[in-house]
Amino acid sequence: MGAATNIVWHEASVDRGARAQQRGHRSAILWFTGLSGSGKSSLANAVNAVLFERGLATYVLDGDNVRHGLCKDLGFSDADREENIRRIGEVAKLFLDAGVITLTAFVSPFQADRDRARALVAEGDFIEIYCAAELEVCEGRDPKGLYAKARAGVIKDFTGISSPYEAPLKPELRLNTGAMALEQSVALVIDYLETQGVLTAPSPT
Amino acid sequence: MGAATNIVWHEASVDRGARAQQRGHRSAILWFTGLSGSGKSSLANAVNAVLFERGLATYVLDGDNVRHGLCKDLGFSDADREENIRRIGEVAKLFLDAGVITLTAFVSPFQADRDRARALVAEGDFIEIYCAAELEVCEGRDPKGLYAKARAGVIKDFTGISSPYEAPLKPELRLNTGAMALEQSVALVIDYLETQGVLTAPSPT
Repeated sequence: MGAATNIVWHEASVDRGARAQQRGHRSAILWFTGLSGSGKSSLANAVNAVLFERGLATYVLDGDNVRHGLCKDLGFSDADREENIRRIGEVAKLFLDAGVITLTAFVSPFQADRDRARALVAEGDFIEIYCAAELEVCEGRDPKGLYAKARAGVIKDFTGISSPYEAPLKPELRLNTGAMALEQSVALVIDYLETQGVLTAPSPT
Repeated sequence: MGAATNIVWHEASVDRGARAQQRGHRSAILWFTGLSGSGKSSLANAVNAVLFERGLATYVLDGDNVRHGLCKDLGFSDADREENIRRIGEVAKLFLDAGVITLTAFVSPFQADRDRARALVAEGDFIEIYCAAELEVCEGRDPKGLYAKARAGVIKDFTGISSPYEAPLKPELRLNTGAMALEQSVALVIDYLETQGVLTAPSPT
């Protein structure tokens, strides 16, 4: 046996409150929603980088790390899209419980799906951030060539072209990411988190 | 605009290596496997508490937070058990990427399922910990009364009674949790993590 022989620990479970006290900040889910090309992923990653540089526990869930892993069995039917968002909501809830500020960057076009994700957690834990770039702007950017393929009919049921996007009814933040500089959007998100007390430890109760 | 106006961040992505440097420790998946009543969850939670008290980023995935959430659509058929373990492996991989030492506590009776979870991550990231309590000991404990129900035929396909448990062929750790004090098991896990360099930051490359 090595140096770890004298092991002691407290019986109290390590819960979210204990993590917040130790780390000096609350956790929350930042749910970015918007059309393809609206800048969700860029904004989420930039906010993530700012928070990381402040020493906070953060993580970004996006298509890159979810669609080819946890949700690789799912396609793009209505049922599969709904299940995709359900799983993302549940995983975000686990990260929330782990004390991590969790940023999700998915089109998540349907209000009902977003509302279900919100309903999994407590009031104030779910921050819906609407990346409200106009369709024309998103299609003009078309960084992955997806709009061109959708217009050509190569991609079916593409949000904004052949499938609806339901704009959030009451998002915590609505950012015109089509017109605003990325730095400004990032600053607005950080400001919001500061005013909501996410970036500081809660008072011990 | 508030105090956050002067927002700057580095373009470099926040990856697992950057998190390890900042937090001062690596991440890993500690995959506890064993019969019901073998002490997986007690051991995982005790190790978690020790690591938390050292200030490390940790999280326990177990039936309590997974079966009623992410995997609530799954039952106990062979296919559903396999999918259950697949999703847990994928979620553990996300936590690993987030820099969190992730402890999973599931019976996970089949070698093939555990091997698939192991194959998702790099060599050294997956630490299989076999809680090798004898069936008689586990059944004698029977904290949830599950063995009694399985013997009475109320629960079908119960691991160890009416469904097989495939003992790990090459676990990183094999602990006789049926005979050993919890403190000793905890110390052996912590010792292993220390010798593997999980609890300290990797050298910058």
